[in-house]
Amino acid sequence: MPVETIDRAAEELNAETARVGRDIDRLFGELLPTVADGRDRLFEAMRHAAIGGGKRLRPLLTIGASRLFAIDRERALRVGAAIEAIHVYSLIHDDLPCMDNADLRRGRATVHKAFGEAVAVLAGDSLHALAFEILADPLTHEDPWVRSDLVLELAAAAGPSGMAGGQMMDLVAEGQTLDLSAITRLQQLKTGALIEYSVEAACIMTKLPGEARTPYRGYARNIGLAFQIADDLIDHSGDETAAGKRTGKDADAGKATFVSLLGEERARQQANFLVEQAIEHLSDHGDEANLLRSIARFAIERDH
Amino acid sequence: MPVETIDRAAEELNAETARVGRDIDRLFGELLPTVADGRDRLFEAMRHAAIGGGKRLRPLLTIGASRLFAIDRERALRVGAAIEAIHVYSLIHDDLPCMDNADLRRGRATVHKAFGEAVAVLAGDSLHALAFEILADPLTHEDPWVRSDLVLELAAAAGPSGMAGGQMMDLVAEGQTLDLSAITRLQQLKTGALIEYSVEAACIMTKLPGEARTPYRGYARNIGLAFQIADDLIDHSGDETAAGKRTGKDADAGKATFVSLLGEERARQQANFLVEQAIEHLSDHGDEANLLRSIARFAIERDH
Repeated sequence: MPVETIDRAAEELNAETARVGRDIDRLFGELLPTVADGRDRLFEAMRHAAIGGGKRLRPLLTIGASRLFAIDRERALRVGAAIEAIHVYSLIHDDLPCMDNADLRRGRATVHKAFGEAVAVLAGDSLHALAFEILADPLTHEDPWVRSDLVLELAAAAGPSGMAGGQMMDLVAEGQTLDLSAITRLQQLKTGALIEYSVEAACIMTKLPGEARTPYRGYARNIGLAFQIADDLIDHSGDETAAGKRTGKDADAGKATFVSLLGEERARQQANFLVEQAIEHLSDHGDEANLLRSIARFAIERDH
Repeated sequence: MPVETIDRAAEELNAETARVGRDIDRLFGELLPTVADGRDRLFEAMRHAAIGGGKRLRPLLTIGASRLFAIDRERALRVGAAIEAIHVYSLIHDDLPCMDNADLRRGRATVHKAFGEAVAVLAGDSLHALAFEILADPLTHEDPWVRSDLVLELAAAAGPSGMAGGQMMDLVAEGQTLDLSAITRLQQLKTGALIEYSVEAACIMTKLPGEARTPYRGYARNIGLAFQIADDLIDHSGDETAAGKRTGKDADAGKATFVSLLGEERARQQANFLVEQAIEHLSDHGDEANLLRSIARFAIERDH
């Protein structure tokens, strides 16, 4: 691909990333109001965690996938906000002293550092409930089948058979040496399930039958692993200011990662291969898939 | 009412309570399988908290309300299990060291005592997601409008405008002296919202229009407050073995309760008045409302 085409794609991706970030912030601003009672600090903690930070990868994937089927952008954004609410709740709980005990997230104090542990538990729980409240709202989709399916699949992706199950495997893995297939399985649950849902949500919104979803699932699965490898590379050699969080913590905890198992060079090659595969899954699409292609391409060229 | 009628009603309530308890245990047993990977301890912690304990008041209310509209019992039980999953998750998180720091719940070790804090956070989160997965499943109701509405209203009852919001108010109230109206508002969110939903869920399942729900909401609101007063009376003067948890903790924490504000005698009178009002709301119904009447009547005559 000519250099100027790559530059233009990078520029467009940056512009869309910024736009999705602003739109998600606006939605959370509307959903998390200032209230004049004892709950005010709870909403404040939720806003602290949910507004103004993060790469917004998951909503961006939902917007990218929604372009394949010409889905209304505002509805796709609401679904993206629901997914981001789940992601943010999981970060709040993951950062707690009894879990990762992190002080810094997205370049700011973690919720328990800024608001105390009890408020952090409740803010995570509240964002968790909010996600399902968004999805089940007729504003998100006029078809109740779609709303019900969006809820069913998100609950599965977030619960013990998805993200929470992966976090549990991660806890158990401490002090153990996992092999490549065990790490892959762990990451497919811990981070892959929600990333896959971010793409699948657009298939649900357009009522695509299950068998027609295979390429999009394939894209999402490849992207999810590529992102995880990129995260491992950042944690391995990255810069804390750019990452917005402490790096090197996997190595400190003695945890196996794709980088510790494959080495830096082979991990990079594997990520590149996954990106090529992801893009290959979109070969039946024209320009409407360009955003998804760019997300894949630049997934592994980031420093945070 | 003649003594023998009261005795029979009490017997029937006891039998139905035991039956609902067994059915909810069976459902959780099916929903929380044994798995052969690192998630096994997560499912074990969920089963520890969800199976074999508690009064199952909320599922019992859903079963009682479902009788008013001849709703299929197995479906009402699934909704009851979803509500109980939310209730149990909130107990697990409430018991954490950073919240109430409780060692004992329902006569057993709390989840963080038995499995550690990190697993307790994840087990609560997993039960939270499970609740919505149950409701959005076509097994729970064939009509997607009903499923979507069940999700929407439960998310609202559990989130920052309901239970989680009430828990936040409770946190903020520590060290403050709340008056009766502030305590009532706090309890309506913290415990009332989910109890109200337990009854309202049957209205949603039978697609009762909003304006026709007034008496059932009134019943549930009265019952919710009566239960809270009964809980305060148990905490004030109760017996720890019967309660299955530490009592006297509100007084120790210097927290205002209905009993500390009204005194024991007036609190008891108020609870009786609320029960009468609750039963009055059911006056258009015949025998099909007997279970709801019994739940109200015996709500305040328990010791745990």
